[in-house]
Amino acid sequence: MTAEEYLQLHQKISPYIHRTPVLTSQLINKSVGCSIYFKCENFQKMGAFKMRGASNAILNLSEEQKSKGVVTHSSGNFAQALSLAAKNQGVKAYIVMPSSAPEVKIEAVKGYGGEVIICPPTLKDREEAAEKVIQTTGATFIHPSNNDDVIYGQGTAAIELLEDHPELDAIVTPVGGGGLLAGTALAASLFAPDCEVYAGEPENVDDAYRSLISGQIESNDSTDTIADGLKTQLGDRNFPIIQKHVKGIMLVSEKEIIDALKLIWTRMKIVVEPSSAVALAAVIRNRKMFIGKKVGIIISGGNVDLAKMPFDYHIL
Amino acid sequence: MTAEEYLQLHQKISPYIHRTPVLTSQLINKSVGCSIYFKCENFQKMGAFKMRGASNAILNLSEEQKSKGVVTHSSGNFAQALSLAAKNQGVKAYIVMPSSAPEVKIEAVKGYGGEVIICPPTLKDREEAAEKVIQTTGATFIHPSNNDDVIYGQGTAAIELLEDHPELDAIVTPVGGGGLLAGTALAASLFAPDCEVYAGEPENVDDAYRSLISGQIESNDSTDTIADGLKTQLGDRNFPIIQKHVKGIMLVSEKEIIDALKLIWTRMKIVVEPSSAVALAAVIRNRKMFIGKKVGIIISGGNVDLAKMPFDYHIL
Repeated sequence: MTAEEYLQLHQKISPYIHRTPVLTSQLINKSVGCSIYFKCENFQKMGAFKMRGASNAILNLSEEQKSKGVVTHSSGNFAQALSLAAKNQGVKAYIVMPSSAPEVKIEAVKGYGGEVIICPPTLKDREEAAEKVIQTTGATFIHPSNNDDVIYGQGTAAIELLEDHPELDAIVTPVGGGGLLAGTALAASLFAPDCEVYAGEPENVDDAYRSLISGQIESNDSTDTIADGLKTQLGDRNFPIIQKHVKGIMLVSEKEIIDALKLIWTRMKIVVEPSSAVALAAVIRNRKMFIGKKVGIIISGGNVDLAKMPFDYHIL
Repeated sequence: MTAEEYLQLHQKISPYIHRTPVLTSQLINKSVGCSIYFKCENFQKMGAFKMRGASNAILNLSEEQKSKGVVTHSSGNFAQALSLAAKNQGVKAYIVMPSSAPEVKIEAVKGYGGEVIICPPTLKDREEAAEKVIQTTGATFIHPSNNDDVIYGQGTAAIELLEDHPELDAIVTPVGGGGLLAGTALAASLFAPDCEVYAGEPENVDDAYRSLISGQIESNDSTDTIADGLKTQLGDRNFPIIQKHVKGIMLVSEKEIIDALKLIWTRMKIVVEPSSAVALAAVIRNRKMFIGKKVGIIISGGNVDLAKMPFDYHIL
């Protein structure tokens, strides 16, 4: 992928996505000691950056593939993103979801036009259910994060951020499945080679952190984190990109995530999901590294269940 | 006040306020049946439109008055706004607050540099405490809503909204003390005489609605509403402007306010206070009046106690 090809890709998906705003907070900058530029993908269509990768993956299908539809297994934002991206391009989307998925999420996928296939909540059942859809319909499987077109699509948020702020010293994203981080690192390597790319990751699901150390893809024994978008692990398509282009992964505690989440909600007045706060939490924890620097943060999304937010004590 | 004078006033306070963005939501427009332009004063300095009126009131003091400081009684956004606006212009602010005010609000005022005077929680005690500050210090009393300079300042949000969207058919604001509504109506009468101005008001504190019917300033027997910024009543400076320039006041139920609040948080991904949702609730309740029209809504602010938000059941 050359810079020119990447710009063409960005132009091609532009009709299907929002160019999201970049917000700043004087108060947060003052308290952290650096200048932070928040790329607000919570304002993206369907509320998350996943819309970029899903749109690009469908754009790159052949006409024959498009006629047979797409399938994925996800209970998170990618399920909604693929449904909406498919609908916008006149393609059928089959979404395999575990029976444990909340009713509101199943309804959201249906609302965006996706056909939901419920399966038992194990990885094996999920894969079998997706395989059955492929056998029956000929649909193309699109992985939520370990797919080149998805990775390239996610990186377009960083392209826009660097167009708006070419002087950034660093960009920090959350890392879950690795699609956003790999895409961001790839985009920065092409458009701002001096801009360092980092990820924030919850201590409780530190598989990406351990993967960079061991040199192989690690998984998590437990998935006990409020950052529910970050429970997944890296894949063989995005891990090499991350190894090559990512400067480091910074771990944060659950308390640090919640504190950063509250800071964003109360000071920036925007609704973001807990996963989004992980990047800011990582910058705050490692603030000495970033003193006086210009730091971009990708706010991954804003789809939250308000009743489940950890706002159990009073803050202004 | 001529249009030219009003533009000069706006220019004078511009260094002290943010020009806030105007956001839209395709989903909300589709579901309500009109095009709504949200003027996002939740992104204003200190988180509410009150910063405009407070800044203008202090700008219009003489040098002698400035040297002696300003005083107000408020436990809401105006207490913080006057503190910050005073600090920004090198003026001392005395804020009389009832002993019943939450600790976080008192701390917020102090954080913005205001000197807090605690008094018993009755109107009489509040007025006596403010009077004592005036006697002792020579400070100038600035009423949160019933003061010409405050009213003019609040109207600058509508000036900006109409500059961005001169084609608006209507503007809707919440109404509490009447400063925002009067300022908005005045601005619209000067800059967009065909644009109708309305207010939304909670049924439970319908004093402004009744005032327009009776022709005199009415008060509330109860103040039982989630829209805690709207419990106050109109004053003799803003009521005549409202009588002359406001097309109507639309009442909404507490449930309608909460539903509109959730719609804004979950679909627009912005944090707004319950008072802000009253205007959208009014448009939704009276949607037949606005079909196909272009409607501006002033989002009054975003200072909320997250733990007190009514998100007690699960929504996506």
